[in-house]
Amino acid sequence: MAKVVECIPNVSEGRNLAVVEAVVAEVRQVPGVVLLDWASNADHNRTVVTFAGEPEGVLEAAWRLVKKAAELIDLDAHQGEHPRMGATDVVPFVPVRDVSMDECVELAKRLGERVGRELNIPVYLYEKAATRPERRNLAEVRRGQYEGLKESIKTPERRPDYGPAVLGKAGAVAIGARPPLVAFNVNLGTANLEIAKAIAKAIRGSSGGFVHVKALAVDLAAQGQVQISMNMVDTQGTPLHRALEFIRREAANYGVPVVGSEIVGLVPLQAMLDAAAYYLQLHDFSSEQILEKRVFG
Amino acid sequence: MAKVVECIPNVSEGRNLAVVEAVVAEVRQVPGVVLLDWASNADHNRTVVTFAGEPEGVLEAAWRLVKKAAELIDLDAHQGEHPRMGATDVVPFVPVRDVSMDECVELAKRLGERVGRELNIPVYLYEKAATRPERRNLAEVRRGQYEGLKESIKTPERRPDYGPAVLGKAGAVAIGARPPLVAFNVNLGTANLEIAKAIAKAIRGSSGGFVHVKALAVDLAAQGQVQISMNMVDTQGTPLHRALEFIRREAANYGVPVVGSEIVGLVPLQAMLDAAAYYLQLHDFSSEQILEKRVFG
Repeated sequence: MAKVVECIPNVSEGRNLAVVEAVVAEVRQVPGVVLLDWASNADHNRTVVTFAGEPEGVLEAAWRLVKKAAELIDLDAHQGEHPRMGATDVVPFVPVRDVSMDECVELAKRLGERVGRELNIPVYLYEKAATRPERRNLAEVRRGQYEGLKESIKTPERRPDYGPAVLGKAGAVAIGARPPLVAFNVNLGTANLEIAKAIAKAIRGSSGGFVHVKALAVDLAAQGQVQISMNMVDTQGTPLHRALEFIRREAANYGVPVVGSEIVGLVPLQAMLDAAAYYLQLHDFSSEQILEKRVFG
Repeated sequence: MAKVVECIPNVSEGRNLAVVEAVVAEVRQVPGVVLLDWASNADHNRTVVTFAGEPEGVLEAAWRLVKKAAELIDLDAHQGEHPRMGATDVVPFVPVRDVSMDECVELAKRLGERVGRELNIPVYLYEKAATRPERRNLAEVRRGQYEGLKESIKTPERRPDYGPAVLGKAGAVAIGARPPLVAFNVNLGTANLEIAKAIAKAIRGSSGGFVHVKALAVDLAAQGQVQISMNMVDTQGTPLHRALEFIRREAANYGVPVVGSEIVGLVPLQAMLDAAAYYLQLHDFSSEQILEKRVFG
């Protein structure tokens, strides 16, 4: 079967839907690419576009989207709650099937080179595509946002990987490669938000927990429950079942049960198979044993 | 994506590999059909052939296989440990993707009608395709085997669904539809076979356990362990995780842990997703959330 890459550009327009539609339309026109979703948020003034397909098609669709966004979006006129530095703010490439992370890094570099050369937009490679350790972290790449970067881009440490060290009205774009992200929420049988806060603090990497987990405590007052809301940024490194078992143990220490969980949006098949194999104690399970996979490859 | 049916004919030849090869070759020649496996057993003098593909192709491949086996195999000359009544002994159709059980029953009836009419071989519809309650059970359909059926086929209760009420040298064939079967083995941290026997008895449907579970106790003397070896004949009705949790509970009653498990051969994707969702407490999970499925349908 074909190689599949996913791409999730974030565009700095979430209010003018004519602009959003024009940007999304660029993706629709590329053969071999499936537009999976787009979601605009007016408060953030930002749209997240998700598409997937064979690598060359996905690269072409990402290029067209970045070009169109640069034509239509003026960062000097942009306001929104979400941090941003460019018309297209960030473009991650994600390996989905029969594609390595190195191939996604290569796509990021090819897109970055073309965006810098043809559109004169500064490009920062981030996460797995980063050329400097401090640029692995997107928040660090975007520090100061569009307004602050106008000046700081002239310093050696903020020099872009491609394109000029000068910001135009389209700002700068972060282009990178990363594993699929899974939004995984776990609900606790208590209304005590302090317990959720303590567990979120214990599990998130930034305060000593799992390196690939971001976590927030959320009050679900209507249900009389609280939630650990997580972004699992690398489910091969930190699997869903390990995060859940950790939360179960921490919650049990307060005499609190896990009452349910949810995956918001999409999840890679392998993450679900890993969880099934773990709990069923299938120590030698291979995804080649999936009947459908044997038939379709 | 295309509909997929699996078919697993059992043929009464496991020693003469020229005959086996000729029968298997019939399947290979049909476009749209993938030969997944064939396994000959000399003691059983029997070969299990597994293939899958779009329904019409699978029907055609099954027809050609039955025809070739009838040409090459003489039941009067057949001996083996496994019960059998025909050159092709049994032909189950199994729904794999976007196919209902009713469609597989229809395939069974169409194959049966043609085998009866063109090959003059008696056909019994069994399991989900059965036309009488007592024919749901394959062992009941095959009672007396080839030798006994020569006489009993003349009685009203053994009258075939298609074809003549007379046995030729190709014998009779059972054709039916059933869910995918999963071979699921659970290993216990004890060398005490009596414990495995007690648990196998408790879990199998025939002695009061789960209706869709067949189970045997197996001694794994080399590992100092014992095993509950199961055939899960309907993982939607009795899921893997429910069988495992039952075994864990029964074993704990002896102070014995489950030390591992294995799936032998293939497993439907849904059975693994059901296990993952159960243990992760994903009460509203849908297979539409699988990233690969969103891309490929």
